[in-house]
Amino acid sequence: MATSFNLLVQFVTKPIQFTDQKQEFNKRTSNTGHRSLPHSISQSSTDSYGSVCSDSSEDGSSPRDKPRRTSKGLSDFCIKNIKQAEFGRREIIIAQQEMPALMILRKGAGGEKPLAGAQVVGCTHITAQTAVLIETLSVLGAQCRWAACNIFSTQNAVAAALAEGGTPVFAWRGESEDDFWWCIDRCVGAETWQPNMIMDDGGDLTHWIHKKHPSLFKNIKGIVEESVTGIYRLYQMSKAGRLCVPAINVNDSVTKQKFDNLYCCKESILDGLKRTTDIMFGGKQVVVCGYGEVGKGCCAALKALGAVVYVTEVDPICALQACMDGFRVNKLSEVARQVDMVVTCTGNKSVVRREHLDRMKDGCILCNMGHSSTEIDLVSLRTAELRWERMRPQVDHVIWPDGKRIVLLAEGRLLNLSCSTVPSFVLSITATTQALALIELYSAPEGRYKQDVYLLPKKMDEYVASLHLPTFDAHLSEVTDEQAKYLGISKHGPFKPNDYR
Amino acid sequence: MATSFNLLVQFVTKPIQFTDQKQEFNKRTSNTGHRSLPHSISQSSTDSYGSVCSDSSEDGSSPRDKPRRTSKGLSDFCIKNIKQAEFGRREIIIAQQEMPALMILRKGAGGEKPLAGAQVVGCTHITAQTAVLIETLSVLGAQCRWAACNIFSTQNAVAAALAEGGTPVFAWRGESEDDFWWCIDRCVGAETWQPNMIMDDGGDLTHWIHKKHPSLFKNIKGIVEESVTGIYRLYQMSKAGRLCVPAINVNDSVTKQKFDNLYCCKESILDGLKRTTDIMFGGKQVVVCGYGEVGKGCCAALKALGAVVYVTEVDPICALQACMDGFRVNKLSEVARQVDMVVTCTGNKSVVRREHLDRMKDGCILCNMGHSSTEIDLVSLRTAELRWERMRPQVDHVIWPDGKRIVLLAEGRLLNLSCSTVPSFVLSITATTQALALIELYSAPEGRYKQDVYLLPKKMDEYVASLHLPTFDAHLSEVTDEQAKYLGISKHGPFKPNDYR
Amino acid sequence: MATSFNLLVQFVTKPIQFTDQKQEFNKRTSNTGHRSLPHSISQSSTDSYGSVCSDSSEDGSSPRDKPRRTSKGLSDFCIKNIKQAEFGRREIIIAQQEMPALMILRKGAGGEKPLAGAQVVGCTHITAQTAVLIETLSVLGAQCRWAACNIFSTQNAVAAALAEGGTPVFAWRGESEDDFWWCIDRCVGAETWQPNMIMDDGGDLTHWIHKKHPSLFKNIKGIVEESVTGIYRLYQMSKAGRLCVPAINVNDSVTKQKFDNLYCCKESILDGLKRTTDIMFGGKQVVVCGYGEVGKGCCAALKALGAVVYVTEVDPICALQACMDGFRVNKLSEVARQVDMVVTCTGNKSVVRREHLDRMKDGCILCNMGHSSTEIDLVSLRTAELRWERMRPQVDHVIWPDGKRIVLLAEGRLLNLSCSTVPSFVLSITATTQALALIELYSAPEGRYKQDVYLLPKKMDEYVASLHLPTFDAHLSEVTDEQAKYLGISKHGPFKPNDYR
Amino acid sequence: MATSFNLLVQFVTKPIQFTDQKQEFNKRTSNTGHRSLPHSISQSSTDSYGSVCSDSSEDGSSPRDKPRRTSKGLSDFCIKNIKQAEFGRREIIIAQQEMPALMILRKGAGGEKPLAGAQVVGCTHITAQTAVLIETLSVLGAQCRWAACNIFSTQNAVAAALAEGGTPVFAWRGESEDDFWWCIDRCVGAETWQPNMIMDDGGDLTHWIHKKHPSLFKNIKGIVEESVTGIYRLYQMSKAGRLCVPAINVNDSVTKQKFDNLYCCKESILDGLKRTTDIMFGGKQVVVCGYGEVGKGCCAALKALGAVVYVTEVDPICALQACMDGFRVNKLSEVARQVDMVVTCTGNKSVVRREHLDRMKDGCILCNMGHSSTEIDLVSLRTAELRWERMRPQVDHVIWPDGKRIVLLAEGRLLNLSCSTVPSFVLSITATTQALALIELYSAPEGRYKQDVYLLPKKMDEYVASLHLPTFDAHLSEVTDEQAKYLGISKHGPFKPNDYR
Repeated sequence: MATSFNLLVQFVTKPIQFTDQKQEFNKRTSNTGHRSLPHSISQSSTDSYGSVCSDSSEDGSSPRDKPRRTSKGLSDFCIKNIKQAEFGRREIIIAQQEMPALMILRKGAGGEKPLAGAQVVGCTHITAQTAVLIETLSVLGAQCRWAACNIFSTQNAVAAALAEGGTPVFAWRGESEDDFWWCIDRCVGAETWQPNMIMDDGGDLTHWIHKKHPSLFKNIKGIVEESVTGIYRLYQMSKAGRLCVPAINVNDSVTKQKFDNLYCCKESILDGLKRTTDIMFGGKQVVVCGYGEVGKGCCAALKALGAVVYVTEVDPICALQACMDGFRVNKLSEVARQVDMVVTCTGNKSVVRREHLDRMKDGCILCNMGHSSTEIDLVSLRTAELRWERMRPQVDHVIWPDGKRIVLLAEGRLLNLSCSTVPSFVLSITATTQALALIELYSAPEGRYKQDVYLLPKKMDEYVASLHLPTFDAHLSEVTDEQAKYLGISKHGPFKPNDYR
Repeated sequence: MATSFNLLVQFVTKPIQFTDQKQEFNKRTSNTGHRSLPHSISQSSTDSYGSVCSDSSEDGSSPRDKPRRTSKGLSDFCIKNIKQAEFGRREIIIAQQEMPALMILRKGAGGEKPLAGAQVVGCTHITAQTAVLIETLSVLGAQCRWAACNIFSTQNAVAAALAEGGTPVFAWRGESEDDFWWCIDRCVGAETWQPNMIMDDGGDLTHWIHKKHPSLFKNIKGIVEESVTGIYRLYQMSKAGRLCVPAINVNDSVTKQKFDNLYCCKESILDGLKRTTDIMFGGKQVVVCGYGEVGKGCCAALKALGAVVYVTEVDPICALQACMDGFRVNKLSEVARQVDMVVTCTGNKSVVRREHLDRMKDGCILCNMGHSSTEIDLVSLRTAELRWERMRPQVDHVIWPDGKRIVLLAEGRLLNLSCSTVPSFVLSITATTQALALIELYSAPEGRYKQDVYLLPKKMDEYVASLHLPTFDAHLSEVTDEQAKYLGISKHGPFKPNDYR
Repeated sequence: MATSFNLLVQFVTKPIQFTDQKQEFNKRTSNTGHRSLPHSISQSSTDSYGSVCSDSSEDGSSPRDKPRRTSKGLSDFCIKNIKQAEFGRREIIIAQQEMPALMILRKGAGGEKPLAGAQVVGCTHITAQTAVLIETLSVLGAQCRWAACNIFSTQNAVAAALAEGGTPVFAWRGESEDDFWWCIDRCVGAETWQPNMIMDDGGDLTHWIHKKHPSLFKNIKGIVEESVTGIYRLYQMSKAGRLCVPAINVNDSVTKQKFDNLYCCKESILDGLKRTTDIMFGGKQVVVCGYGEVGKGCCAALKALGAVVYVTEVDPICALQACMDGFRVNKLSEVARQVDMVVTCTGNKSVVRREHLDRMKDGCILCNMGHSSTEIDLVSLRTAELRWERMRPQVDHVIWPDGKRIVLLAEGRLLNLSCSTVPSFVLSITATTQALALIELYSAPEGRYKQDVYLLPKKMDEYVASLHLPTFDAHLSEVTDEQAKYLGISKHGPFKPNDYR
Repeated sequence: MATSFNLLVQFVTKPIQFTDQKQEFNKRTSNTGHRSLPHSISQSSTDSYGSVCSDSSEDGSSPRDKPRRTSKGLSDFCIKNIKQAEFGRREIIIAQQEMPALMILRKGAGGEKPLAGAQVVGCTHITAQTAVLIETLSVLGAQCRWAACNIFSTQNAVAAALAEGGTPVFAWRGESEDDFWWCIDRCVGAETWQPNMIMDDGGDLTHWIHKKHPSLFKNIKGIVEESVTGIYRLYQMSKAGRLCVPAINVNDSVTKQKFDNLYCCKESILDGLKRTTDIMFGGKQVVVCGYGEVGKGCCAALKALGAVVYVTEVDPICALQACMDGFRVNKLSEVARQVDMVVTCTGNKSVVRREHLDRMKDGCILCNMGHSSTEIDLVSLRTAELRWERMRPQVDHVIWPDGKRIVLLAEGRLLNLSCSTVPSFVLSITATTQALALIELYSAPEGRYKQDVYLLPKKMDEYVASLHLPTFDAHLSEVTDEQAKYLGISKHGPFKPNDYR
């Protein structure tokens, strides 16, 4: 039931599995005509930048074939079109406005450069938000080289702006799998440069170094990883005794868990539905499948705009919360006939099945906010008697023999990544955690971290949160000596136990 | 403080004033190189259909020069590109889903054709929603000919679909003023056809017939007009004794007054802000200038999504409502420094002035939901020391000498028309009122209506509302005989006095 | 669908009909052993003051029999128990905190006494809130004499405090009808005092003077009336040509119409239900009958606390509003089986009938927020097979033969008057309007007002509102000269047309 | 930051500390003229039952002196007044309506008696809600004997109803400490009866048996404890190796942690404020100190009714949540001047200090929803220059030399226990958990539980939740085999990890 970045990652990192036992790698990557990558990513959250980052006028030639130079003559990068740099810079400037903590970190550095000497190799989505992160690391003293963790999600204009700004970046939208690994390899292996820090999102970069350049780990002080998949891989390595540097798990930070799912989805569910369908929310009946954090966010937003919201749940505890929060809880088969919209938020598979789809009424809108595209049983919709009609981008009408139309959004992929934007501010919380984790690992005295996977200390979680308070002109109260004693805590935090959620 | 259609109209109808005393018409229209029409309209609510109705690939030649034919060989129309008909038909189908009352009217007609024999000449926006209205009139028996009331608002693909469907339509986006009148004239004066009903939006059509084809009024049974401007013109004519047929004022219907402003704005404020800025609403400080119906809708939506909302008001009664609804009321000059967004909803002019703009903080977003582009004093921003930078379509950064950026949306024009969509469902309420008004005037026994301006009877307002209830699966209770007697009303309505709001 | 004061009045003034054609008055009043007054009033909103104003320890003797004196030796009053003055004063102090406008009027007077010379005879409820009003009039220079307009609603402790404070007051809870008229007569006819202003609530005082002391009207400059019933009587008199002084209709002021119903009910519905039943709102299914202002207030509050709210309506326009505000609209007979609570807000009669009651489930709570006790058909519950059990004060279980229990609150009378308090702040708006109306009539130059019924000028409505803004630390914006011209209004208001609602 | 029952317990169990090292017990209890028990309890949540359970007419004599009999001749009990049984039964019936799970358990038992043979000695609050629990245990086969865990909280009428119903109960409101232990001892040591199960709330009963009747533990199969204090004591005993039977910790169940604090406070904050002050919420400025679960509940309710809410926090993570939920976060010293109400929810001490109180404005209302009465520094208000005036029960005005009045509720004790009711439904969740824990311990095969403190298994938490769903007519979805496999869980739960919150 997670969302945003790390989910985007899940899509892609899963298919690009490193099948090193079965075939020799270099051969494999170049000849995959039909890759198993889901097409879902190609219309991800970057859609919303269409007008700015539109690639429609570009030719189909590979960036690898054409050397390019920045206005200052730099050529150590590979992106689609350096001429888009100006557009991309504007998007970065817009993102900066909503990523205050990173901007504070930049200023806070002052003369000090906590990352002086750091040589960071990174592999994340290349978006305006990560550009703010990357350039923050640079301001703090790091030398960065960056690749994309996703073959579809790169905002070409942003990549251009990064390159123009002096960051060696190797990424474009629509890489082939061969391109994907080529870009990573170009990041890792510069002649005059050796990475001493890794920032990864999905674990592909870490895996590649492990496989292809294991000797680099001698110089590497640590890994910062923020995706579910990457963390899983790290724990596997750790268990197998093959993790040879410390790593920080950003994914399970309280600031990520408690903010990302709830607030991102609350902000984006309305946006995604409006951009695709222009639907009026007031009075519309909606069923939200699942009342975890994602479902709670969606329900809150839909109810706030006047929709009548029903919930389905399998867990009686979450169901009771839904009830007491004012939502009727029922089975999908019971409410399918009456609702105008169906939103899946379960983290489960085949939650909406043909038996439900057959009951839905003409015009019912169907979308997925949960996790991968498994929540809706699309296979049951790809049958001969049902006709698909593409009405708008990301909007298909699936037409029953009697003329009934089901409005399917983003072909069942994640609505918030495909059809809306994710608020930069929420991404800022995770990006700041990544930056602080990097600084911590880089500057920690020897011996503080072993060859294991760590959570960022609670106190730094609190620091991340505190860096975002000025945006809201929020002022914390201070704990007095007497109060600290009464509560049995330090005046300066941490204020809650580690497992407090 | 009104919104939607009729506001769109205000923009355009005001500049296209019929200056018949001063110059001969035919000469005037063709040589206006620099028309005084505000550019605002060119990026109206149709922006959201960009991908479908995009005209980017079209040449700049005038449709008037190139005869076209539908697939069935019809040629009595003039639009941009008949090949877009399929796209446009999809948009009409989408709109139909949210315009249930008109679809019920079509079915309700059954074999009966209440408009059989009606020859309706119309002049409205040409959008998917009006297409549903026009085609409903046709299903009910009318023969329609249609022109656009706005030179910028026509959705070319929808116009193509209408033409392909058999409606003689004369409209395209980006008409010149000469085109504008030419199109109207082509509607009015067909050789084999004489209008007997007028459906107008802004009064230009009515005016044109009055001036150029006054003899037609002998056959015309009535006028349906839905804009503030058009109504004003009709009352002027009536006062001057020059109104020679009955007219129905749709604009002041309770269903229009009580639903349009509040619900349209509540639905579209979030949408407009998201599409342009991707801003996170949670915790953001917003000042909404004006707490009329538009302001009430904006405040409710913003608060619902977690914004901290301030209100400015000049009227102590509205201010007290804002207070009791939970909003702090303050002067703009007091809150300008702290807010993240400024939304104008006043119906007034120069509400946001340079003195306020100078106080706003870096990144403050500024937009207008009120009426025309006068609410923000743009002149004060067009000065030498301020630099404008177009960041995205409809998004300008106005940059102060010290680097402060104010984010101006839609150049101060109406956000909901420029950067979001207006929900079809709300437009359906007005469109249904128009259709019923037309039927009423066409089928009324002689003598029921004199040469005057009428409101639709309250009972028909209630009928319009009742036609929209099935969308919500809503079931009315019935008044018993005993209750009707107790209340002193008829069992079948009207249930409230005429002036009840 | 009105509430609060004027409704309280409706109860009482209707039964005390002045049947002057049929019988001689003096005979009638003294021998009505069983008056037709509904017992509803005896447990009105004053219940909440039980601990303070409790009369339980008092004997049953009539105050008329026992002369009493204040601590200062005054004896020109007749109340229950002067010893309660201290308790009553505390309640008045509490009310003052929430009636800021009257306190501002007191201060604003400064040395000036706009009511100097005014001799006001009043007949209203005697509560802490009216005490604040009466004492404000005194501070402004008036000499007041006061009676109760309701035989059950007098807060004895407050009456004692008024008397102790020097106001001749003649009122106690539980007056007989004879007492009622005796008290009014004592107010009107003091030997050394002649009224020149009337403040009435229900019209009984006005009627009495008209009948018994018509000569007094020579001195009387005007009447201020705030109830529906009293206004009706005044218009009848006016129509009959028997109104011999000007009167101001406070009831139809915008400040009363737009604030009283909505905000009072929103505040008191939860309170009334909690005090009687301790019910948890979260997730409870509630049907609210009627979606006028009262229903809108109730629905908003119940939804806000997590209830699932259904609406019944007869008027399709209100029904459509309910839908678009997010409430399912259905017939009571359809939802009766599933709901946990039924709240009537219709202004109609027999809305909840035995056929509905028979369907309700065990434990269903039933209450009335609408108008008089007619909304629930109580007669159908007073049958042999149903057993009534008084569970708590104001709470009856009506028990079906099969054991099913319906929880009836306040025997179907108004819940907000019987089982909750009405916020002083909202009453303050009306009380301030009364005070200003009195000042206006008293100080108006001769000829401004004829022998007719007037609304308070819109500008004074706005002034009343503005006096309540400091409570919220609200600051109005000012209209510039340019804006005033643009809008065609005065800079200082009124800002809206008279009929704007 | 916990609330409800267990907090009530904290008050009382702390003072009644078992000082066995220092003095011989029997001597100590009888001669404490002035006990250190806070008076807070005497006006706890039972206040709302005033009219029903009022003891005002009762004499002051001790129930211990006067033998009483039920209508059936039973005499094995000791309560205040058996004549109140009928009143008490009504309150129990009312509570039953909102405690559905226990009623289902009763029915579910059918012929089966899971507690047949159980002899349960209990020590809890004696309220309508616990009466429903106790009588449920009886229906399930248990023989119960019961004492009060709190000398002030007993509802005498409920105790009478229990006795009349056949439960030996020993409890009355206003016990002396000697009475308190005498009652417990009478429960434990009946001649013909030996307990084999303990249900405790605060640990006093457990402690007493341990000290005075340790041999009883041979027969005892387990302890169910639901308070923070009692759990603390059990863990201490366990650590010291002195716990000789298994115990179940009900306090830390997810159903208690996630529901009690949030929903109880959300429901009761408005109620407590209304009953004491009749304040209007709309537009009032309130500062809520602390944004944990209690603060979140209070903020949500206050905002929902139209208050303008500020938050103070020391923890940046909670502060950031408050911001993104739409609340301004500031220091108390900054907002003290402007707010109309101050609500403490911190779990901390001296949060509101004299320095803040001096800044508050006239009429500011001050109350505590957090934990014990330490949150407001009352000592600083008990000074010579400040005058206290009791305005109503639970309402004091503290008056500054300049006349400024601060409205202090419940003398700084918990508002929801002192001035409002706690919804039976939420208490039902905990009571059901207690009943299931008792059944589990009583019927567990030997060896399942050791002499240790256990949490109820997650699966039983889910069962408790599921028993409360029928109240809301909620229907759970079922997990398919395929889904269970995909998620890696059992089809029948548990559905989440143990530490999921």
